[in-house]
Amino acid sequence: MSDNITINKQDSRHELRELLNSQLRLMLEQNNLEGAKSLLLPVQPVDIAEAIGDLPETQKLIAFRLLNKTEAIDVYEHLDYNTQQSLIQEFKRQEVLDIVDKMSPDDRAKLFDELPAAVVSRILEQLSPEERQATNLLLGYGEDTAGRIMTPEYIALKQDFTVGQTLEKIRTEARASELIYYMYVTDASRHLLGIVSLRDLVVSSPDDTLDKVLTKDIVYVNTDMDQEEVARLIQRYDFLAVPVVDKELRLVGIVTVDDVIDIIEREATEDIYALGAVQSDGDSSYFKTNLFVVARRRVVWLLVLLLTNTVTGSIIGAQEDILAQVTVLAAFIPLLIGTGGNIGTQSSTVVIRGLSTDKVSDYGPGKIIFREAIAGLLLGLILGLLATVWAYFLPQTNQNPIVCITVGFSLVAIALLASVAGSALPFLFRSLGLDPALMSAPFITTAVDVLGVLIYFTIARMLLGL
Amino acid sequence: MSDNITINKQDSRHELRELLNSQLRLMLEQNNLEGAKSLLLPVQPVDIAEAIGDLPETQKLIAFRLLNKTEAIDVYEHLDYNTQQSLIQEFKRQEVLDIVDKMSPDDRAKLFDELPAAVVSRILEQLSPEERQATNLLLGYGEDTAGRIMTPEYIALKQDFTVGQTLEKIRTEARASELIYYMYVTDASRHLLGIVSLRDLVVSSPDDTLDKVLTKDIVYVNTDMDQEEVARLIQRYDFLAVPVVDKELRLVGIVTVDDVIDIIEREATEDIYALGAVQSDGDSSYFKTNLFVVARRRVVWLLVLLLTNTVTGSIIGAQEDILAQVTVLAAFIPLLIGTGGNIGTQSSTVVIRGLSTDKVSDYGPGKIIFREAIAGLLLGLILGLLATVWAYFLPQTNQNPIVCITVGFSLVAIALLASVAGSALPFLFRSLGLDPALMSAPFITTAVDVLGVLIYFTIARMLLGL
Repeated sequence: MSDNITINKQDSRHELRELLNSQLRLMLEQNNLEGAKSLLLPVQPVDIAEAIGDLPETQKLIAFRLLNKTEAIDVYEHLDYNTQQSLIQEFKRQEVLDIVDKMSPDDRAKLFDELPAAVVSRILEQLSPEERQATNLLLGYGEDTAGRIMTPEYIALKQDFTVGQTLEKIRTEARASELIYYMYVTDASRHLLGIVSLRDLVVSSPDDTLDKVLTKDIVYVNTDMDQEEVARLIQRYDFLAVPVVDKELRLVGIVTVDDVIDIIEREATEDIYALGAVQSDGDSSYFKTNLFVVARRRVVWLLVLLLTNTVTGSIIGAQEDILAQVTVLAAFIPLLIGTGGNIGTQSSTVVIRGLSTDKVSDYGPGKIIFREAIAGLLLGLILGLLATVWAYFLPQTNQNPIVCITVGFSLVAIALLASVAGSALPFLFRSLGLDPALMSAPFITTAVDVLGVLIYFTIARMLLGL
Repeated sequence: MSDNITINKQDSRHELRELLNSQLRLMLEQNNLEGAKSLLLPVQPVDIAEAIGDLPETQKLIAFRLLNKTEAIDVYEHLDYNTQQSLIQEFKRQEVLDIVDKMSPDDRAKLFDELPAAVVSRILEQLSPEERQATNLLLGYGEDTAGRIMTPEYIALKQDFTVGQTLEKIRTEARASELIYYMYVTDASRHLLGIVSLRDLVVSSPDDTLDKVLTKDIVYVNTDMDQEEVARLIQRYDFLAVPVVDKELRLVGIVTVDDVIDIIEREATEDIYALGAVQSDGDSSYFKTNLFVVARRRVVWLLVLLLTNTVTGSIIGAQEDILAQVTVLAAFIPLLIGTGGNIGTQSSTVVIRGLSTDKVSDYGPGKIIFREAIAGLLLGLILGLLATVWAYFLPQTNQNPIVCITVGFSLVAIALLASVAGSALPFLFRSLGLDPALMSAPFITTAVDVLGVLIYFTIARMLLGL
């Protein structure tokens, strides 16, 4: 979390960034290092990181070395993983120390996740003992847990401090802490006793002891809590940070609100990708991923769906006798399975999003599936009626009322089935310990297809007496 | 934004909340008001709001009146809109004043958006002049803009203040401000000169003037900037708040990070709903929406899709001659249009999410569509080859190689077409000023269906010589 609020006034930030990128490249090409340096001076670290990331490989290190030490760390934390990796290979020993030793431990843990193990252990050796310990602590927790995303750089206080003493302590520790607006009061064995906000301190008298100021009822999380749950908690209570404790309830770190925003966005992307039957690409940039990797990420789902579609195909193929007699039946297949797929997708979308945002979890699956079934039935009745009338006026049906009624009945049955499947399957997936979002639109669509054609031809056989 | 950090220590917060809800109801039923009061005492406002929202209508007002004035305002801001509305109808005149006058202006503006106009004007009359002005200011801005979500309750400072004077001012104004960690330095006509963070103040000497401490290069937004852009900006720079200025560049408010989290989540839900062909339901709770309203929200898209599906149906219906001769062709329709729909969905999902998160906007549409086309072609070749082989061994095809090759060729063509359509249509929608997410999975699927069957039968006619 950064407290710098620097950048030029400018409405269209996007254009400003493009201008910066092209100017920086130009100056580096002309070897105008002083110019480049003063160009970057008033710019926010995240914008500098983007500009450096866009430079040709050979210029990245040169541009990075123009930054002063403090700024270099901030910028490095914001670089994309590819650039971080390529820079670290080229750094001299002292540079690695300067940068990596001073990164926040959570950003460093993220970097180490991406670097080759050999590089990581080489860097770890060179870190100062405290920083090495902090990083090892974080790397010891599972991926996507509170332990992994927390920072151990918080301000810890003792209960008998006065407000004045505390403000003095903040003055000296502010540089090394990620967030100074909340402070944590602990006992001798690091058990969390209470939280003091800078707001509380500022409005209190300097002679008060923290005892009088601190909030004793605390919302905290455990190191192994899933990062998404941590994010939801901070979101629910509008916190700037939440303390993380270990199994013995000792304070080990804090998770800050800026990480939460990124988590919520990443989780939404994962859900959206799953709904679109695309395997998530983590944080990698769209244009930096190899096309064969892209194809591999997508082909798995397509093969599963291809297999299911062949089942639908075989079912239709097995109806050759009835199709040869009443060929017009084939014309309604796309309509029936298409509508079924769409209704199923609607139900699964609402249920999956409700599960991810924790908004339907208070109700049991039974109640939700029942509601979706009624909604599906309603939609089926509306669309079934419309389809029957439309089929009647279609030239190919020759106003054969039985064909029209077959289409209408099938649509009602398929709509009901699709809404039940669409709402029930995400719950089934969750109870199997899988991500409900995997029960995606394409999967629901294909599953409903199979059952849809079976229903259609069964009703047709019954009504047409074949 | 709340700085309270109160609640009992408890790991499973969800169970705790359920317990609170049931206990509260029990005590109110037994008319044990003192018990209910002390039950709510150590609980966070957002949890109290949830508990009250779950009570039967008759008990809501009773429970709400147990809260002290300050807490009542916090709780009221967190109630869902339905409960807010039903309570306000029952409040006595003085209660309305006590609650609504002290709400933060942004929360009040949200409430007024939901209330009937007559109720709003009645309440507005009763507000204090400053609060009325603040609310009118917010209500004057368009929905989903920075102006609408900002709070005018920030701390404004003059340039010649010393750090000591400023800390004194914070002490007196902290109660009335939503966020005290950033303060804004303005000139006589309210033009924004710089930003001071509480962090800056704490680490500076009390005799320094703000001139020396403030950050002069400021990231700000205009009142009419879309709330999603504001959210992205705060996310990018890891800010706790961003200042909002009017057309004359005068400071009018700030947008805080807690609002940003909700915006990012709501926008993701909107995208996901659009992708699932469900009209967004805003903030309303799943079980509180009437089932007919649910059906109405979904039927619009289904009708559009029904219409498109009938086109697909007519195309198939018009192929009666070829279908009657080679009925096995019908068996491959679900496979072909299903796979096409899935590939199109994958491309559109990646492009739509990239556009929403601002991650592909730096590249032109041409480059992205070309990439997706190549990916689609790759996928088509893999799947086409598999489908040809599979069709060959399917009993219904009688090992007719021409039918098998027709299926394979069609699949390649459809995959290419689907990926181009899936990636190009969101850009087309955006350039028409529409939400790219409307180019949803069901829509792409249905559009690809029509073209898919056309391609299939055209290739079949050519190869089979019919």
